[in-house]
Amino acid sequence: MEIKVLKDILGANEQIAGKNRELLEKNKVFCVNIMASPGAGKTSFVLQTIRVLKGNVRIGVIEGDISSSIDAETVAEEGVPVVQINTGGECHLEAVQIQNALNNLPLKDIDLLLIENVGNLVCPAEFNLGEHLKILIASVPEGDDKPFKYPLMFTTVDGLVLNKIDLLPYVKFNADAFTKTVKNINAKAEIFRVSCTTGDGVPEWAKWLKTRMKS
Amino acid sequence: MEIKVLKDILGANEQIAGKNRELLEKNKVFCVNIMASPGAGKTSFVLQTIRVLKGNVRIGVIEGDISSSIDAETVAEEGVPVVQINTGGECHLEAVQIQNALNNLPLKDIDLLLIENVGNLVCPAEFNLGEHLKILIASVPEGDDKPFKYPLMFTTVDGLVLNKIDLLPYVKFNADAFTKTVKNINAKAEIFRVSCTTGDGVPEWAKWLKTRMKS
Repeated sequence: MEIKVLKDILGANEQIAGKNRELLEKNKVFCVNIMASPGAGKTSFVLQTIRVLKGNVRIGVIEGDISSSIDAETVAEEGVPVVQINTGGECHLEAVQIQNALNNLPLKDIDLLLIENVGNLVCPAEFNLGEHLKILIASVPEGDDKPFKYPLMFTTVDGLVLNKIDLLPYVKFNADAFTKTVKNINAKAEIFRVSCTTGDGVPEWAKWLKTRMKS
Repeated sequence: MEIKVLKDILGANEQIAGKNRELLEKNKVFCVNIMASPGAGKTSFVLQTIRVLKGNVRIGVIEGDISSSIDAETVAEEGVPVVQINTGGECHLEAVQIQNALNNLPLKDIDLLLIENVGNLVCPAEFNLGEHLKILIASVPEGDDKPFKYPLMFTTVDGLVLNKIDLLPYVKFNADAFTKTVKNINAKAEIFRVSCTTGDGVPEWAKWLKTRMKS
């Protein structure tokens, strides 16, 4: 008898991701998986997106962290439904955790579901969650060489948000070279230059997101 | 018959880590495992450490990356022996990769071996490599809440380097609160405030490292 453990595990994740997608579409929920290094600004980006879209779009959030519920508490202050997933050591979210979270969200009252993945530029790229869009947040202080070092993440995503552009005057970072590199390895990725501190670039991202939600 | 796959894997890593440690001590090589998020400044920190200790301490470097050899090339320009490990997708270094790298380094000509782990605040903390010290680099732009979110990494290390202190005027980061949090969860960790851009704090780190090498 042939035993294929890894293949079975990945297969199970894909299967559950497919069910998540069905459930989301049945409830007309558009879902975005937000990935990034620790400290790139995922939570600030979620908060800015909520603030710009509030009133037009009903938003829900799933927060993924190894431990703590700091981010979920911060997001809940915006008055949107939030579920915190604590992975208990695991370095990424998997579809089964999203399945559980979906069962704890008022899907009928949500148009847009933002998933904040665990802070990690590697493993989250390997696991579909059932989302419609994968977004990567890269931040200026991380340096412009990251696309060469974490190629799977940079080639997998539908959109790339370059965050913390307010720090460009203080660090060595060639934004044009970075954008060119990303375009070379991932032509489909839409790129946004954003500062979640000043709010710059957030309306452009929100406008594009609304277009994608309608298509 | 009982099958314990995970336990066997971890056991194998510990066994090889022990062999690495024996080989290092036989050759009087002191070994430091440097871990951090992507873009926290690991390579800059390795370069600064080489520059401060050069002439006094013979240094060798192992560079861990998923792909590319950018960092190894940069470090090699300092005139020290370097081996690049490409993990090919894996999000952390394991002892067996270090074993292979040690076989490709002139251990008799090295006093201090710096290992730059893959950029990741989660998985590298789980794998001993045979090192004498584990050092974590946290950087100011990542935010001061990271100890709550990545507790294993912050409690595992012997030393914590807070890098990019030159950016403190431009971002929201309470350095005293951060230091207090780290001390609360990891009393043994020595803490250094450093800027690898200006060189501030590097001599203090290098002085402590030399003391640890002699003990």
